[in-house]
Amino acid sequence: VNQPIPTPQSPRAPAAIIVEAVMPELDAGRHAVKRAVGDLLDVSAAIFKDGHDLLAARVRYRGPNDDTWRTLRMRYDNDADRWSAQFPVDQVGAWTFTVEAWTDVFATWRSELEKKHNAGQDIASELLEGAQLLEHTAAHLAHPYARAQLLRLAGLLRDTDFEPYTRVRVGVAPELLAVMEAHYIPGDLSTFERELSVHVDRERARFAAWYEFFPRSATTDPHRHGTFAEAEKQLDRIAWLGFDVVYLPPIHPIGVASRKGPNNTLTPGPNDPGSPWAIGNQHGGHTAIEPALGTLDDFDRFVKRASELGLDIALDYALQCSPDHPWLKEHPEWFFVRPDGTIKYAENPPKKYQDIYPLNFWCADREGLWSACRDIFLFWIGHGVRTFRVDNPHTKALSFWEWVIAEVRKDHPDVIFLAEAFTRPNRMRYLAKAGFTQSYTYFTWRNTPSELQEYLTELTQGPMREYFRGNLFPNTPDILHEHLQHGGRGAFRARLLLAATLSPVYGIYSGFELLEASPVRPGSEEYLDSEKYQIRVRDYDAPGNLNADMRRMNQIRRENRALQLYDNLRFHHADNGAILFYSKSFYKNDLLIIVNCDPHHTQEAIVHVPLAELGLTEHTPYVVEDLLTGARYTWHGAHNYVRLDPQIQPGHLLRLVRPEGEQRQ
Amino acid sequence: VNQPIPTPQSPRAPAAIIVEAVMPELDAGRHAVKRAVGDLLDVSAAIFKDGHDLLAARVRYRGPNDDTWRTLRMRYDNDADRWSAQFPVDQVGAWTFTVEAWTDVFATWRSELEKKHNAGQDIASELLEGAQLLEHTAAHLAHPYARAQLLRLAGLLRDTDFEPYTRVRVGVAPELLAVMEAHYIPGDLSTFERELSVHVDRERARFAAWYEFFPRSATTDPHRHGTFAEAEKQLDRIAWLGFDVVYLPPIHPIGVASRKGPNNTLTPGPNDPGSPWAIGNQHGGHTAIEPALGTLDDFDRFVKRASELGLDIALDYALQCSPDHPWLKEHPEWFFVRPDGTIKYAENPPKKYQDIYPLNFWCADREGLWSACRDIFLFWIGHGVRTFRVDNPHTKALSFWEWVIAEVRKDHPDVIFLAEAFTRPNRMRYLAKAGFTQSYTYFTWRNTPSELQEYLTELTQGPMREYFRGNLFPNTPDILHEHLQHGGRGAFRARLLLAATLSPVYGIYSGFELLEASPVRPGSEEYLDSEKYQIRVRDYDAPGNLNADMRRMNQIRRENRALQLYDNLRFHHADNGAILFYSKSFYKNDLLIIVNCDPHHTQEAIVHVPLAELGLTEHTPYVVEDLLTGARYTWHGAHNYVRLDPQIQPGHLLRLVRPEGEQRQ
Repeated sequence: VNQPIPTPQSPRAPAAIIVEAVMPELDAGRHAVKRAVGDLLDVSAAIFKDGHDLLAARVRYRGPNDDTWRTLRMRYDNDADRWSAQFPVDQVGAWTFTVEAWTDVFATWRSELEKKHNAGQDIASELLEGAQLLEHTAAHLAHPYARAQLLRLAGLLRDTDFEPYTRVRVGVAPELLAVMEAHYIPGDLSTFERELSVHVDRERARFAAWYEFFPRSATTDPHRHGTFAEAEKQLDRIAWLGFDVVYLPPIHPIGVASRKGPNNTLTPGPNDPGSPWAIGNQHGGHTAIEPALGTLDDFDRFVKRASELGLDIALDYALQCSPDHPWLKEHPEWFFVRPDGTIKYAENPPKKYQDIYPLNFWCADREGLWSACRDIFLFWIGHGVRTFRVDNPHTKALSFWEWVIAEVRKDHPDVIFLAEAFTRPNRMRYLAKAGFTQSYTYFTWRNTPSELQEYLTELTQGPMREYFRGNLFPNTPDILHEHLQHGGRGAFRARLLLAATLSPVYGIYSGFELLEASPVRPGSEEYLDSEKYQIRVRDYDAPGNLNADMRRMNQIRRENRALQLYDNLRFHHADNGAILFYSKSFYKNDLLIIVNCDPHHTQEAIVHVPLAELGLTEHTPYVVEDLLTGARYTWHGAHNYVRLDPQIQPGHLLRLVRPEGEQRQ
Repeated sequence: VNQPIPTPQSPRAPAAIIVEAVMPELDAGRHAVKRAVGDLLDVSAAIFKDGHDLLAARVRYRGPNDDTWRTLRMRYDNDADRWSAQFPVDQVGAWTFTVEAWTDVFATWRSELEKKHNAGQDIASELLEGAQLLEHTAAHLAHPYARAQLLRLAGLLRDTDFEPYTRVRVGVAPELLAVMEAHYIPGDLSTFERELSVHVDRERARFAAWYEFFPRSATTDPHRHGTFAEAEKQLDRIAWLGFDVVYLPPIHPIGVASRKGPNNTLTPGPNDPGSPWAIGNQHGGHTAIEPALGTLDDFDRFVKRASELGLDIALDYALQCSPDHPWLKEHPEWFFVRPDGTIKYAENPPKKYQDIYPLNFWCADREGLWSACRDIFLFWIGHGVRTFRVDNPHTKALSFWEWVIAEVRKDHPDVIFLAEAFTRPNRMRYLAKAGFTQSYTYFTWRNTPSELQEYLTELTQGPMREYFRGNLFPNTPDILHEHLQHGGRGAFRARLLLAATLSPVYGIYSGFELLEASPVRPGSEEYLDSEKYQIRVRDYDAPGNLNADMRRMNQIRRENRALQLYDNLRFHHADNGAILFYSKSFYKNDLLIIVNCDPHHTQEAIVHVPLAELGLTEHTPYVVEDLLTGARYTWHGAHNYVRLDPQIQPGHLLRLVRPEGEQRQ
């Protein structure tokens, strides 16, 4: 009836050394944290035992291509009372790590020997103990040279022909320390109880500018459907603007039954193209291409041209079917069925979505359905697509996403998944935990400085920064916020500046650069004549466009490493509630960003520059250069004046100019 | 090579419903959180799935005397996006709980039926679905009445002789809801991945006033060793003062070899009693009693008398041995041995502690040693002791504590363990995680308002509040802080008020009430003529004593429930950095405590009363009564003036006086 007395050897038993609070970790190791290639992974832990012995610790880790574990010694930080080590994650894929610790018996002996000797105490017994330790270590050593070396040094420690002082010198010699550090076999190795996971993405998972457009609108005639061949020409423009990822709404055949007409009407004309999210008709489903757009060969050419321009193509992955999708006939068992045997369309009572049929992820043929959904990803990956924007993932089984993302990543760890979930925080966070690389956010609805500061602090400074990468869109085909409807040019320019600098991943939906701002009706966030239901021809060079702003913004992002990182955002005080002041820093690249969030009025503020964090002093003037205009200002001390007229310039993007050769303190 | 597709049935697979972030929990369930009998345990969780289905959830839990699990339905809090339920923990011992959730298929159906019906939609198919659901539930029911009832109601739902309106009324009827809530068998029950633990203590674990004294000093002649018979008389005094726990330094035979003389000298006289922490001589070890104190029978009488007075006796549990301890001869293998075969005394090089021999907790006969250490606890428990103050636990194997506390609690779950660990935060916290009921703190060294606010906020408001109960001592035999050495009567009274109100567990070491304040030498925290090394005769009724203060303080603690709780401490603003202002509240018992932490000067302040938290308004005056003096003050609004002269009254302990029958808002 007694509990077993734990031994440090048995793996599940409590250990002589406690290793706890290992970071980074997410939900006790249930999910992986995220990093991008080239990041330094900083592993830290609380490690301690009873008494005064010195400890040693190491990270044990392996990357996706490693056959064996690697180890790296950790160092103790006395102020934090934690141990840590950093290593670069240099391969895309799944990394695993844990922490091990042991009593550094030799270092403890060495330190105590020195202290006692310095205090003039008798150390005869200590020298013998040291000799025993060396001999014990040598007995377990295969390496003949190190073995002989240890036995020779042990002999010296024992040799009473030498003065104690000489023998102490042997004991504390760097030579002996090096041999013992290399060969000492821990007697009480304690391992953290879990292995923790890191998913390492390619860099575009963390740093990318997205551009969304409907390829069918790549036409000069609103009555003629655009083609991939025409859309290809848009790619040059998008590359010139400096974007990295081109996201296409669904490109598949569109259902005919219950097709939506312009402005979401239920009475389409014969030539209305319908919503591309109503996927599937007689031409095929999720692996087919809408014939009016072209062929699969046309698509391949489109992807190839994008690739030549350095652009990634992102496809929309929308797991629902139109009434005409082939799966309704081939696999009615994958859907929800009524008592009368008919298949159910989507509903959120009393709303009905008769052009959309949801899949039943927990149907009896779950294996068939889930595999088919995975194969859609694999099909498009086979055609060069490495990025997917996933439509409404929160309305599909959450466990499905965890499974399918892991499945895809087995052979394609570089694939990027963006979750378009606008839902309650717990569900949004969970999708990111389950594996989504990036996530849409509430940014579109956060327009005042206090809203922005609170929300971006949560995203980039709290626990979410380890796994949730917010991709900030000021607009989408579904969301034209009233701030843009009423704010005019100043609002568009400020929102572009905010999105592009608050997060390294941001995106815009085309039309933004033309200041499109008309809602379908007052109070609605839907666009008038929404491109979801009709072809929209645009003149992207129309007067007043924001092309130059966008190009400049994307160029600045490429030239400033501080804008390419996620968790380096810091907010600072501005004494005007309409003005947001924040900084992004990396090494010597320090940016101070000041945005007037009021699109209607000129606003002035005193901004409080974080001098100490920037290595500046109160008394030495410094120069800041506005990267948006090229203007330079000499600032003095912490408190500086700004004045921002939304009609002229809604914000400053200032870079601290450091004299040549100057180091940050 | 494919991952298996998870099913909601397989226990390790991802589930249809996500249950995460269950609280309270400590290190992913590795350790138990702490509660006391009578507490309401508030269990909460984040629970969600995809889509719009309604969910249901319950806590599954069992107390120490439960043979089976109990369940309790949880409720959803929309603002917090979390589910929760509360239940009283009414038995001392180990409690376990987890959280389960499922799709509330019936509630979902019922809600959608109502919405569609209200929108005038056709609901024929929904009524058939409902009938199927009822029939499916009935088919799995053993209970014949409920079964018949469900089939009857299903028949009504199917009966097209009735109007749809009538059948909807059947579907939404409370009768049907009650049957389905009682009998519905979840099809997708998802359980949180861990069972979490709570250790429930008796109330004195959280609420108690401790009094420490050396029974050998219970004498009128410093050359004559006090006895338990004489110490018994002190118990009346201590009970009159209002204390709950009497803590005795070790009562065991004291080593003769290397015995310490007065003021820690190495040259004791023949009659010097030595330090009681040097345990063991020819009369026995940890289960023996120092003969000069009396016999085991005398001790039993002492414990009995304490019990009659409502006092708990706390013994010192100090796991080290004097050079004369019987274990050195009987079990030399339990100690550390030098190369020459001699046993090692304690060292922290270059310091030597030759009167103390440490045990080797990882020796080969670990089982024998650990069991013997456990048996010391069991021996004294057999003599009526239920409280132990553990000496320096951070210098003994941390895993030993986790094991031995669990061992003792198997048969004696009410035993209280106080950890005397003054060490780095991670180790102090770990001892509490490993099972220690209470912990000594840094309170003794926190004397300014800002230090106190920061430290007590960490203890009572952060994660530590779940497992670490700080027992606040303004003095101990080892620590006479310079604040007391130089602060005089005002410092003693302020520290008493702080200790007794900042935490529900506090203690003093005797002599405090006599304002003993002389250090052994300037700059030392050791007492002059420390009782650790000699007998100290005291006249507890000497003029100027703090007996009345202590008695009043302990009485106020017993009469005010707000002072008996741990995590209800809140700090508020006082506009003078020498004054600390805080509140303790529970239900209608609201206390405002204001302490002048400067023992040398009168200090004035405007204190900012948290009106809204107290249910007060800016415009209605309110009365506060100083429980220390009986004085009443009528206060107005949030900002009120106080003036505290340390020579007269270093603090206010104000109770908000509510008119009869008034409810807090």
